[in-house]
Amino acid sequence: MVARVVPVDPFDLVVFGATGDLARRKLIPALYHRMHDGQAPEGARIVGAARADLDADGYRRMADAALTEFVAPADLDAASREIFLKAIDYVPVDIGGDDGWTALGEALPEHGSSRPRAFYLSLAPRFFGPAAARVKSEGLAGAEGRIVVEKPFGHDLGSARALNAALAGAFDEHHVYRIDHYLGKETVQNLMALRFANALFEPLWNNHHIDHVQITVAESVGVEGRGPYYDGVGAMRDMVQNHLLQLLCLIAMEPPAHFEPDAVRDEKVKVLRALAPLSSAENVVRGQYAGAGASASYAEDAQSPDSRTESYIALKAEVANWRWSGVPFYLRTGKRLRGRMSEIAVAFKPAPHSIFPGGGKVGQNVLAIRLQPDEGITLGMTIKDPGPGGLRLAPAVLDMTFAEAMRGAPSLRMPDAYERLVMDVIRGDQTLFMRGDECEAAWSWVDPIIAAWEERGDRPAAYDPGSSGPDDALMLLHRDGRRWREIAP
Amino acid sequence: MVARVVPVDPFDLVVFGATGDLARRKLIPALYHRMHDGQAPEGARIVGAARADLDADGYRRMADAALTEFVAPADLDAASREIFLKAIDYVPVDIGGDDGWTALGEALPEHGSSRPRAFYLSLAPRFFGPAAARVKSEGLAGAEGRIVVEKPFGHDLGSARALNAALAGAFDEHHVYRIDHYLGKETVQNLMALRFANALFEPLWNNHHIDHVQITVAESVGVEGRGPYYDGVGAMRDMVQNHLLQLLCLIAMEPPAHFEPDAVRDEKVKVLRALAPLSSAENVVRGQYAGAGASASYAEDAQSPDSRTESYIALKAEVANWRWSGVPFYLRTGKRLRGRMSEIAVAFKPAPHSIFPGGGKVGQNVLAIRLQPDEGITLGMTIKDPGPGGLRLAPAVLDMTFAEAMRGAPSLRMPDAYERLVMDVIRGDQTLFMRGDECEAAWSWVDPIIAAWEERGDRPAAYDPGSSGPDDALMLLHRDGRRWREIAP
Repeated sequence: MVARVVPVDPFDLVVFGATGDLARRKLIPALYHRMHDGQAPEGARIVGAARADLDADGYRRMADAALTEFVAPADLDAASREIFLKAIDYVPVDIGGDDGWTALGEALPEHGSSRPRAFYLSLAPRFFGPAAARVKSEGLAGAEGRIVVEKPFGHDLGSARALNAALAGAFDEHHVYRIDHYLGKETVQNLMALRFANALFEPLWNNHHIDHVQITVAESVGVEGRGPYYDGVGAMRDMVQNHLLQLLCLIAMEPPAHFEPDAVRDEKVKVLRALAPLSSAENVVRGQYAGAGASASYAEDAQSPDSRTESYIALKAEVANWRWSGVPFYLRTGKRLRGRMSEIAVAFKPAPHSIFPGGGKVGQNVLAIRLQPDEGITLGMTIKDPGPGGLRLAPAVLDMTFAEAMRGAPSLRMPDAYERLVMDVIRGDQTLFMRGDECEAAWSWVDPIIAAWEERGDRPAAYDPGSSGPDDALMLLHRDGRRWREIAP
Repeated sequence: MVARVVPVDPFDLVVFGATGDLARRKLIPALYHRMHDGQAPEGARIVGAARADLDADGYRRMADAALTEFVAPADLDAASREIFLKAIDYVPVDIGGDDGWTALGEALPEHGSSRPRAFYLSLAPRFFGPAAARVKSEGLAGAEGRIVVEKPFGHDLGSARALNAALAGAFDEHHVYRIDHYLGKETVQNLMALRFANALFEPLWNNHHIDHVQITVAESVGVEGRGPYYDGVGAMRDMVQNHLLQLLCLIAMEPPAHFEPDAVRDEKVKVLRALAPLSSAENVVRGQYAGAGASASYAEDAQSPDSRTESYIALKAEVANWRWSGVPFYLRTGKRLRGRMSEIAVAFKPAPHSIFPGGGKVGQNVLAIRLQPDEGITLGMTIKDPGPGGLRLAPAVLDMTFAEAMRGAPSLRMPDAYERLVMDVIRGDQTLFMRGDECEAAWSWVDPIIAAWEERGDRPAAYDPGSSGPDDALMLLHRDGRRWREIAP
């Protein structure tokens, strides 16, 4: 079954860093899928731009190989493949120098047409500003050209401000698309539908009815080859400042008046600004994975024997406003953990009183938004144990995602976040992209936490590879009478 | 798969009217199932009592034939059947006379044992009082003997009071079990679990969040052979006074402090007493099915050409208390309708505002408790239309009944209400049985409605057989800007 799609207009998409990992793994497969499903039209043009001295056919071969490697065979057909590869062009460009810019301009159709045009900077962040400026000064962007960037978006508030300023010199904020691919996940959008298209949840969505929220992004892999780079970053900057805080915003935000870019982002930035400062050491737990057997320690992976960088962080945040006061948001993320799992769990307060006798334990309702693996939304409920016995209670897990709507379409492919986000760029819809002030607000909360532990000279606690993280992280919840949800192996 | 069961103690159950329709269709199959599933022990004894001059073997043959007719072949096995039939005895008894009572006493084990003993009066109501008195005076009941009766429980408040008084002369109220088999339905009990074992629903369960409630008991059959009897009763007395009002009570009652018989029934009787008087004609619609082709009219079925008895009734009730003020409870029941359907539908208020653009129609959440056909509880929700398109909304129906709990047990048989209720009698649990004061409170509300239309000389409106009822019933909701849920054919 092919999902219902509304085709976008023909567009030009220039991918800088077109030979890189992100382009091969994510962008090319995403664009293929959108074309295969009939959403990106045949008239679309995808122009690769990178330093490599390839011609269009050479890059098409590279793209073709990427499809073979990263698209499921069932989704690959010869006709779609041919149409897709025909849409591809390539221009060698020296991003930091002068070579290739003129040729790039010549490879693009005349301006003045209403074709959306986007420039995807799949580049190291130091090139974001210069590349944006050059696109502008070469006159490639036109009045409606869009620029797309991805994390890391700064290393702290100062560098983020500088980056925003550099982009702002060339592009209006309404033409800057900062990707956080977590926001493109199907279940994250479904969470918005559940919250705002049903009258059921909103009355419960506050500190009267919600006990706490857990946001987990657990990885089973270590830092491996990225070690030396990662060692200058750490889990707080790499994951919390962007992905985890963005998810927190979607849970905590007030209902926007419209599901429109600035209405939604205004609400998100309000959440970030409402985060209570978190300088106290007891509400932040840092960890670093130890080695075990053949499994290298973080210090070995990072090639930094005395590293104080955290590969794990857990913290207890508070959104200090009327809706959320007193509801802890427990966030944790780490590498080399027991399993790979990203989820948001909203735990409701237990019923205030159980009317049921002994056997009737009243459970706690938990709404779990799972991003990976197995995207989906479930609601933990208590039901009557089916059968003719007494009214005994039993836990049950409800699938809130698909239900009957998907029963007839079991083969519907779950689209990758990039498919959605790239199409949003073409449509000119910034709703699921971070605005500059959000990014800065997140850094404003993160920076003092990092400064505090640097000042204290904290060392991350060691944790066993394949574990759920350091013991202190368990205690973070345990002392509140709560526990983390299990990370399944 | 066999459901988890907690066996009851060995018991004696005397079924008066043992050769009748209810015994054959419901009680014998229910008792077989409970024994087959291991809940009723081998030591149980079922004593049939009726006027027919049978011996034990003769009644066993009748019971055996009832099993063949009313139990699914997959649930019948020779061993269970043999054990069950061995538990059966029979004594010819003249309920209105003196014959057989002594023999009945002799067929029962000595008192003083702790065996629960119950007397099921599967008899015409005029025998309830005399039979109860005789059971008592013959010394058959002992201190803990229970009496079981079923509707019709009176014809109006006066006759119900008289019946209660007659029973009270022989049995303490705590030993009287008034069956309303709707309360034994699996989904009705699951509704109790959903409401009171989850913190999610109770905050929404009031006039702030619930728009209205619909209770429908639709039958596709007419009155047929029961016509002349039914003509003296009508839908109001036959269905509304008991079944529909009982369902209304379960939706509307306050949370009892304990799920215990009198705690629950105290709350139900409060609801009945809170029902606003309904004398105004515009809130009650009566109907009588017309004939069409080979389908006889009600008047023909009832053999009463000028009958004013309603075979259909719809009304708009109000529970006048703080929780429910302003929330209409629309009740309807009728014969010869478009289909057979019993359900309670709780319609929540729509979201106060849609944040979604044009395509994003925000639906109304409806919790539907279906009693028949296909027992189950569903929740109508709005979700994101799955797939990579924009955030479009789509309706979805969630199964709130079984979810994961039943996934592994697709063959779990849905027990009949009588199985549950008869076991409750043995366990001595009156929670799902009507108390005398509930029954009287229901008549107190029903009687003036009947009196008002008799005073006005109302005639029921004719409706087409196979339709959804008279037009006036549609208008009852339409003038409030609402509509009935569809009765599926």
